[in-house]
Amino acid sequence: MKRNLVLQSDFGLSDGAVSAMYGVANTVDPEIRISNLTHDIPQYNIWEGSYRLYQTFNYWPEKTVFVSVVDPGVGTDRLSVVVKTATNHYIVTPDNGTLTHIKQDIGILEAREIDESLNRLPHSGESYTFHGRDVYAYTGARLAANVISFEEVGPVVDVDAIIELERPVASAKENEVFGNIDILDVRFGNLWMNISRELFLEAGVEYGDSLDVVIADNAHQVYKNTMTFGHSFADSRLGEPLLYVNSLDNVGVALNQGSFARTYHIQTGADWKITIRKPACLSGN
Amino acid sequence: MKRNLVLQSDFGLSDGAVSAMYGVANTVDPEIRISNLTHDIPQYNIWEGSYRLYQTFNYWPEKTVFVSVVDPGVGTDRLSVVVKTATNHYIVTPDNGTLTHIKQDIGILEAREIDESLNRLPHSGESYTFHGRDVYAYTGARLAANVISFEEVGPVVDVDAIIELERPVASAKENEVFGNIDILDVRFGNLWMNISRELFLEAGVEYGDSLDVVIADNAHQVYKNTMTFGHSFADSRLGEPLLYVNSLDNVGVALNQGSFARTYHIQTGADWKITIRKPACLSGN
Amino acid sequence: MKRNLVLQSDFGLSDGAVSAMYGVANTVDPEIRISNLTHDIPQYNIWEGSYRLYQTFNYWPEKTVFVSVVDPGVGTDRLSVVVKTATNHYIVTPDNGTLTHIKQDIGILEAREIDESLNRLPHSGESYTFHGRDVYAYTGARLAANVISFEEVGPVVDVDAIIELERPVASAKENEVFGNIDILDVRFGNLWMNISRELFLEAGVEYGDSLDVVIADNAHQVYKNTMTFGHSFADSRLGEPLLYVNSLDNVGVALNQGSFARTYHIQTGADWKITIRKPACLSGN
Repeated sequence: MKRNLVLQSDFGLSDGAVSAMYGVANTVDPEIRISNLTHDIPQYNIWEGSYRLYQTFNYWPEKTVFVSVVDPGVGTDRLSVVVKTATNHYIVTPDNGTLTHIKQDIGILEAREIDESLNRLPHSGESYTFHGRDVYAYTGARLAANVISFEEVGPVVDVDAIIELERPVASAKENEVFGNIDILDVRFGNLWMNISRELFLEAGVEYGDSLDVVIADNAHQVYKNTMTFGHSFADSRLGEPLLYVNSLDNVGVALNQGSFARTYHIQTGADWKITIRKPACLSGN
Repeated sequence: MKRNLVLQSDFGLSDGAVSAMYGVANTVDPEIRISNLTHDIPQYNIWEGSYRLYQTFNYWPEKTVFVSVVDPGVGTDRLSVVVKTATNHYIVTPDNGTLTHIKQDIGILEAREIDESLNRLPHSGESYTFHGRDVYAYTGARLAANVISFEEVGPVVDVDAIIELERPVASAKENEVFGNIDILDVRFGNLWMNISRELFLEAGVEYGDSLDVVIADNAHQVYKNTMTFGHSFADSRLGEPLLYVNSLDNVGVALNQGSFARTYHIQTGADWKITIRKPACLSGN
Repeated sequence: MKRNLVLQSDFGLSDGAVSAMYGVANTVDPEIRISNLTHDIPQYNIWEGSYRLYQTFNYWPEKTVFVSVVDPGVGTDRLSVVVKTATNHYIVTPDNGTLTHIKQDIGILEAREIDESLNRLPHSGESYTFHGRDVYAYTGARLAANVISFEEVGPVVDVDAIIELERPVASAKENEVFGNIDILDVRFGNLWMNISRELFLEAGVEYGDSLDVVIADNAHQVYKNTMTFGHSFADSRLGEPLLYVNSLDNVGVALNQGSFARTYHIQTGADWKITIRKPACLSGN
């Protein structure tokens, strides 16, 4: 059975780049099933590329081959690799931090460097700028179509050496949780934190609790208000903020039918910190 | 033969949500043919979701399964249903008005509530916020792949109880037609009305007629001008307004190679009314 | 084996238009492999439609059928054609200049006018405005599925008569190249010129050279600076401009991790000229 090939990039869909990748894969084997993860990763945003892979891969069957090309270092000596995850999925990508979440939270069983003398689209030699098509899509398609085995990708790379981006860690003590705003649920403007549901409950927070939420951009406090931890958006009124558990089983902040991020000018990353606290009157008992 | 699964939502394509839906469907059966209707429905705009289904479904083969997730009520007790249309298509959706046009203009033969004890992605229990992936895509894929029959979706729901949005009705008298601006042809900025070609002709309008067009936002008149009812855009000059028959066999208003909606700040819905009149000198004979 | 059907248009993906085209193709034959080149061609921009076809088609297997609908003349007597390229690909399109690059740079073996009495979606008669669905997608699908042969598209059209847009030609003399800005690499804001790598090298330019670049909008000079001709973006620092060879083996101008086009307000077309010169001190030896 032919495997799936799932493509991600920061190329957008407004020109022919992604279609050229599809074409290359079709030329390798017209039976591969090709689809998109997203091509709207903000340009050069490796962190978001890593996050979207992590958010999605596990809903795909084993042996699915992902190709992720967010590659500010194209043309440098950064490695091109294929990794096999602990869940038996494959990811083809420049080794630039794109594998951060997968490596840390899922595990990488084995990594191999792409041997471009074997795994590069024939006659694509002079263009140094479109590895997404000539190397990554081509190699991913060959792997998905069983034209090459994982071993034939190229030589083994030390998994420990796979590059990881710095990643803030959330923490909890009684009645208080500290975390970071990892990423936005872009379309709806919700904030997604690095705070798992388990950590939240560890701190003693329960559904229905009213909680103090403080958001800061480094030392600068940007938002402070009280909101409810609800089962769903339906537990709040239109335009009201709420805490909820998102589709990754992490804690999110939303404005019911509004955009929290846009309304309060919230961004993401290591500088953007959130503190969630049970008020004394609630935590006192 | 495997059926088609066609996905619509207000999720956008910028994160991993839609790809996770594809993955779930692939896990159900790797032979299903999956594609997108659109994922750019404006957030929570159930009316537009209903309209796009109506605009598109009939170009697909019988037994195609549509999944439409525009779901401001996720987490409330709104029903999740699958309906079988009079044309033998299936639609999987929250019952929140998304079926308005299909129910009224095409007809629903039978409706069933999704029994989530059977038709919910295994191990997806704690997340209350992504029914699009865990319930709708999963159930749609199982139906498309013949893993379940329509009867196995869940218990029968009274078709009469399927929720319908309020929907203004167009009317005509001699030489005059009254209607609403239903929706925009977004990319080109054309207005699409709830006025059918038949109704237009009933009023005695003929190709080539010059007609008075008044557009009002409730009582506030927004636009008034004379334009020609043409066979095609080629019957008008660049930048000239015209009336034409759109791809749904309804009447549209366009600005040849411009955006009528953007130029005159036109919006859509029950408040946005249009009157089209044959001037006395034309209608006199 | 079923062929690929690759769709391009200026319809966008925000409504049901493209999905209706997919549906029509599925109705013709559910085994056709359908995908998108892009649907974000700026409205009515035939030049960009021609360019994106040229940029992409050759990465697809022989006999792939492309459908390109950028059609400001819908409803006029412009021809609807299918051409067979010298590379054995098929393109279904209005004959309005969309075939400019393919005709001039690749070659057209044979052209046929679509006979709409045979090749038009049944029962689509009254709508004059959606040929993309009713004629082009339908005919493309029938050709891809071998329902009709190329000969059954309709009568032969003189290849010489296929419409070509005006297309500026680049030129070189020793140490100096003159060209035009053909198009943007939209997402990244890079400029793509009509200057081939060969022409560049003909002028005596070598990797590592520092070159004077002047960009003018007609007689009005818009940009003037010195930049390096690099193997890749890695040869320049963040925010630095550079000359490079793009994925079409033409010369491009980029701002490393910035948008050259947005930063300097550069547009594309016959009016936008670029001159690249080796400074005297370099060219002197």
